Amino acid sequence: MIQLHCFGESGNAYKAALALQLSGLEWEPVFVDFFGGATRSEEYRRDLNPMGEAPVMVDGEVKLTQSGVIQMYVTEKSGKFGGTSPEDAREVMRWVFWDNHKLSSQAGMTRFLMNFLPEEKRPAEVIGFMQGRLKSAYQVLDAHLSGRDWIVGDGVTNADLSCCGYLYYPEPFGFDRKDWPNIDAWLTRLSQQPGWKHPYELMPGNPSDRA
Amino acid sequence: MIQLHCFGESGNAYKAALALQLSGLEWEPVFVDFFGGATRSEEYRRDLNPMGEAPVMVDGEVKLTQSGVIQMYVTEKSGKFGGTSPEDAREVMRWVFWDNHKLSSQAGMTRFLMNFLPEEKRPAEVIGFMQGRLKSAYQVLDAHLSGRDWIVGDGVTNADLSCCGYLYYPEPFGFDRKDWPNIDAWLTRLSQQPGWKHPYELMPGNPSDRA
Repeated sequence: MIQLHCFGESGNAYKAALALQLSGLEWEPVFVDFFGGATRSEEYRRDLNPMGEAPVMVDGEVKLTQSGVIQMYVTEKSGKFGGTSPEDAREVMRWVFWDNHKLSSQAGMTRFLMNFLPEEKRPAEVIGFMQGRLKSAYQVLDAHLSGRDWIVGDGVTNADLSCCGYLYYPEPFGFDRKDWPNIDAWLTRLSQQPGWKHPYELMPGNPSDRA
Repeated sequence: MIQLHCFGESGNAYKAALALQLSGLEWEPVFVDFFGGATRSEEYRRDLNPMGEAPVMVDGEVKLTQSGVIQMYVTEKSGKFGGTSPEDAREVMRWVFWDNHKLSSQAGMTRFLMNFLPEEKRPAEVIGFMQGRLKSAYQVLDAHLSGRDWIVGDGVTNADLSCCGYLYYPEPFGFDRKDWPNIDAWLTRLSQQPGWKHPYELMPGNPSDRA
């Protein structure tokens, strides 16, 4: 059975977990105690990921990191979410890269700084700067989704499963669904897919564990 | 002939240009006047890239953005740089995603803030914060290159062509090759590949144009 080393607060892990979940492949989450320092431990870097990041997927001999690569693997195994033509396949990858570069990476960091750092350590200038960059990303995505149900083609692809990574979380980081009607409708559509779960239901660990 | 819309200062464009250059495919650069506002124009967003980014590759009917996707296309067409087994292919993609997420994205932004913004507009806290994050990325790459000639396998792949994106530029952004001996030796090795050119020689436009 495929194992995904992950934790609820990680939108990057959610991107991989949601692809596994909606693909129909058998998988199980393995809790990574990120807030207890697990990903910074020597053991984790040696046995799971020298980059010190989650998620990590293990399927027999195959060990993968980077949500985008795990999504590609899920597509290889399940035939799903990769796009139905060479053109669509490239368009899917284009959005997955864009998400990694401009959306999830910056949203994840901003949410971390605003919610998971002690208040006196939150760097206000960095947060403001990142929120400005994120606004440009929301604009691009919202404009693209105008008149479209899905980011590429006429069904769910890794483009959707990547870009949604941080957008269901309740912690404030400057993103409000009400400001972006096309993103809002798309997130609703995606959440109506059979098997869909919220990150805190799909993966172990959430902020209330530490409250 | 393949056209790459690019400009010398863009390490993201360099990643695509260098892949094209070393692949042996025929290509030509088309200058994007980024500093003159080209990528923010309505025309650019309509005709080339709604995301407002460079590079953009045009090959007949195929129009692609995101350096990682253009590299995948170069691999499709040339058979080069994609890794020689399914395992290596995944490992190449893992590093390309890591680069987009943790190295080039942050290095490009930090270099921009430190060199291409007017001095009074440079956000010191953001720059310091980004340099701290980048140091972790240099550590990961330098440790990985210990005892290795190339990031994956025994030849140049898109992993190398991605991670080097911003590391040959002369403008200061907190990266000094002397601090990272394995990265330094690897950059030298890569620059000795037949056909290799420095970004300011491979693509049109450089800071002296605006001096």
